[in-house]
Amino acid sequence: MSAPPFIADVEVPEAQPVARFRILYADTDKMGIAYHAAFLRYMELGRVELLRSLGVPYTDLERFGLALPLSDLAVRYRVPARYDDEISIYVGLVLVTRVRVHFQYRFVIEPGGRPDVDERLILLVAETRHACVRVADAKPERMPPPFFERLEQARDRLRERR
Amino acid sequence: MSAPPFIADVEVPEAQPVARFRILYADTDKMGIAYHAAFLRYMELGRVELLRSLGVPYTDLERFGLALPLSDLAVRYRVPARYDDEISIYVGLVLVTRVRVHFQYRFVIEPGGRPDVDERLILLVAETRHACVRVADAKPERMPPPFFERLEQARDRLRERR
Amino acid sequence: MSAPPFIADVEVPEAQPVARFRILYADTDKMGIAYHAAFLRYMELGRVELLRSLGVPYTDLERFGLALPLSDLAVRYRVPARYDDEISIYVGLVLVTRVRVHFQYRFVIEPGGRPDVDERLILLVAETRHACVRVADAKPERMPPPFFERLEQARDRLRERR
Amino acid sequence: MSAPPFIADVEVPEAQPVARFRILYADTDKMGIAYHAAFLRYMELGRVELLRSLGVPYTDLERFGLALPLSDLAVRYRVPARYDDEISIYVGLVLVTRVRVHFQYRFVIEPGGRPDVDERLILLVAETRHACVRVADAKPERMPPPFFERLEQARDRLRERR
Repeated sequence: MSAPPFIADVEVPEAQPVARFRILYADTDKMGIAYHAAFLRYMELGRVELLRSLGVPYTDLERFGLALPLSDLAVRYRVPARYDDEISIYVGLVLVTRVRVHFQYRFVIEPGGRPDVDERLILLVAETRHACVRVADAKPERMPPPFFERLEQARDRLRERR
Repeated sequence: MSAPPFIADVEVPEAQPVARFRILYADTDKMGIAYHAAFLRYMELGRVELLRSLGVPYTDLERFGLALPLSDLAVRYRVPARYDDEISIYVGLVLVTRVRVHFQYRFVIEPGGRPDVDERLILLVAETRHACVRVADAKPERMPPPFFERLEQARDRLRERR
Repeated sequence: MSAPPFIADVEVPEAQPVARFRILYADTDKMGIAYHAAFLRYMELGRVELLRSLGVPYTDLERFGLALPLSDLAVRYRVPARYDDEISIYVGLVLVTRVRVHFQYRFVIEPGGRPDVDERLILLVAETRHACVRVADAKPERMPPPFFERLEQARDRLRERR
Repeated sequence: MSAPPFIADVEVPEAQPVARFRILYADTDKMGIAYHAAFLRYMELGRVELLRSLGVPYTDLERFGLALPLSDLAVRYRVPARYDDEISIYVGLVLVTRVRVHFQYRFVIEPGGRPDVDERLILLVAETRHACVRVADAKPERMPPPFFERLEQARDRLRERR
């Protein structure tokens, strides 16, 4: 019996990773591999660096009193990560509306990122969905036009790169 | 535009929570609410206490050289949790085969679990899917009969309780 | 060459633990033991439950716009904790002034808290030092009299119990 | 009443940081600053990158079946870190024997690492003490000569740089 995947695959540009990191002891568990929850902070690292590279840093949104808390999260773990693996994070924007943003992620070991690994290894794919809210009262709020527009353009540019 | 939920709702018995905890500063972020990743460790707490209460503690599985790493994860965040909220974890078994187990979770603030909250508040629902593997080489392996049978019976008992 | 301990021992009442917990996979690392940083959140659990049991819950302090961030931390790790160990947290108040509170901690496996362990095992001792500050601007602030007085009485009661 | 510091200051070469990172939401708490425990994983990042830069990567030690668990930890928090701060980690070796290694850390915001910060800001200083043990049974074990010698030379080189 094969369980249907929560997410089949992700649409993420492969041009270049938004961030790289190495698995720490802090990330591992007694199975000797990275604990599944460890990747969530690296997803945050990925999306914050994507936004920064797109010219719409998250701190800009904060200046408007806004935030992008998660409403949904899905992860498909494929290959376990090991201590000291060098991992590349690729992030894509798959939905941008006035009040919502959806990110997709692919975590990859590039050839050489683990000793003896000479082919690209996809560790996991994921999606996070975010609602734009006012920090003060957690009510939904439309993103400010410049932020939203730059995000939309970025989504279009990312699409073209695919 | 409304995004389809990754998971609509979960099948979790409401008889009694498997565990309770309070949100720590360690769990919060600068938005003043629990960081989304904080719940993953509490999901582990929930499923490990469910297994213990069912008479099939996870350490039994380890004695066979086996483990249940996650293959898939989905979370739907509904209501943010705040510092010092007292939260009840309800966990259900939705699939048990020789080589797979799927858990579902409901995190709830019961009346009184937050000052001024006098009705039940569902914070989030989630599902984790696990494959049974040998720790030594991460290869899939069938669960040992006593463990599997007790798990199947538990799933059936949990079903009846619904 | 023997390194001098940062803290030799702690003054913690042994009457009864303020909290109990079990080591999760989330807490372990690839050495198969609890990662050293995992205990910091359990120290927070310990001091927040001590304050609650003393009738001066941390949320009371927050209502005055105050907080108790750490200024210093010292931990002496003695015996590693393993997965599923049941651990008791003992916490003492060793200094209480208008603007500072110092807590000490002893983490213990009681007989039976780990299979085959039939004698008390002290895992680690620790001290955290906290300054009372206003959340708004992080400036030092005196604790409000009722909070301070109850804390002082508690420190004296804890001393008598030793 | 002024509490004596657990550690007064640290001996850390200032030539160049071993690693840089930015504070994530994952690191912050509801006070709006980095949670004290968040720095422990960055200390690990610091020492692992120091060892790598010295030509004695931690994975080499693992190949001998050895590990360097913490025996002692001390941190002095001076200035709170905020979301998105860019932080430089400086690490020094202050003791190297056959069976022990002591690291010291200085976490710094360089001018420009936080908007409006135009002078160097020392956030915290810390020390971790490690014993060399066999992973198999957690017994103390002497470091293998090449590893130990390169570490000793590194400590001497680091000393000269001061």
